[in-house]
Amino acid sequence: MKLLEERILKDGIVKMGNVLKVDSFLNHQMDIELLNEMGKEWKRLFADEKISKILTIESSGIGIAVIAAQYFGVPVVFAKKTQTLNLDGDLYTTKVESFTHGKVYDVVVSKKFISEDDNILIIDDFLANGNALLGLTHIAEQAGAKVAGIGIGIEKRYQGGGDMMRNKGYRVESLALIERMSEKNIEFGTLN
Amino acid sequence: MKLLEERILKDGIVKMGNVLKVDSFLNHQMDIELLNEMGKEWKRLFADEKISKILTIESSGIGIAVIAAQYFGVPVVFAKKTQTLNLDGDLYTTKVESFTHGKVYDVVVSKKFISEDDNILIIDDFLANGNALLGLTHIAEQAGAKVAGIGIGIEKRYQGGGDMMRNKGYRVESLALIERMSEKNIEFGTLN
Repeated sequence: MKLLEERILKDGIVKMGNVLKVDSFLNHQMDIELLNEMGKEWKRLFADEKISKILTIESSGIGIAVIAAQYFGVPVVFAKKTQTLNLDGDLYTTKVESFTHGKVYDVVVSKKFISEDDNILIIDDFLANGNALLGLTHIAEQAGAKVAGIGIGIEKRYQGGGDMMRNKGYRVESLALIERMSEKNIEFGTLN
Repeated sequence: MKLLEERILKDGIVKMGNVLKVDSFLNHQMDIELLNEMGKEWKRLFADEKISKILTIESSGIGIAVIAAQYFGVPVVFAKKTQTLNLDGDLYTTKVESFTHGKVYDVVVSKKFISEDDNILIIDDFLANGNALLGLTHIAEQAGAKVAGIGIGIEKRYQGGGDMMRNKGYRVESLALIERMSEKNIEFGTLN
């Protein structure tokens, strides 16, 4: 998606440790017009799927998921990260190791909100090693729900998570696919 | 706001410990149509203010803040909760004690995203004792920004946070104002 690539080149900052900071428009401050264009693009890409629910994970996935949901006309469920399982009731749970913080979180979704009748679109802002996606698909699996696809804002392809999920059979649509990155240069690619 | 009050009566669940669960439509699963109606209502209420930015706090404030921002045509900044101050760069920081978890968080916002030129609308899903709002207004204060108002989804008035903020001179507009609550009954009120 041209608009997102251009924005990354303009306002993204590559930091030590292979970190791409896009906090001025995507995951600390959020440019709502850009989020709307991203939502429209996922709708176009997944137009052939009858999505029943969007699933994301707190915190930075919530904004784009909610905006995208307007184009699909479905509710959003966000998985909660917790280090204390103090939510009551019946939960789907899984574990996710955070790339940024090096911690392992319990990630939970109430059983009330995903069922075997659901055809889920997973949305997240970033895809690196794919740990968060593994967790979210594990939750969908526990519910017996179908995962129609995965919509990602920015995929750092060289970290392998996107292709790992594709090899598992998931349809992963990343609006910006970064092949290589240095403090001087960001190189985008396409799937084919 | 009639629509929200009715939804709370229909789908809200009052739990032990004075907890109102609205996780089926507001803060775990999110009903995007309802969020849009809430956004429109805040826009109507704050129509006389030239808002430059919406400020909220992760996680459950993000969804409604982002939807509301569409009606104001402004970006959203969400304050981050952290127990390890590992974000780089210059930050506004404050401390917030969580009513639900009993923990004290450091709450941070990058100095890049709020300045003395801003006229801020603070948005959050819940207002109980007002600790999160104190933190957010403290951050606005550090930036020298003006707080035009505070838009809340559900205020539990008997916990005092809303009136504390009003007594400090803030304009707090809560779309549902709960005066009293028990497992059998939820009683709504109005400010005047």
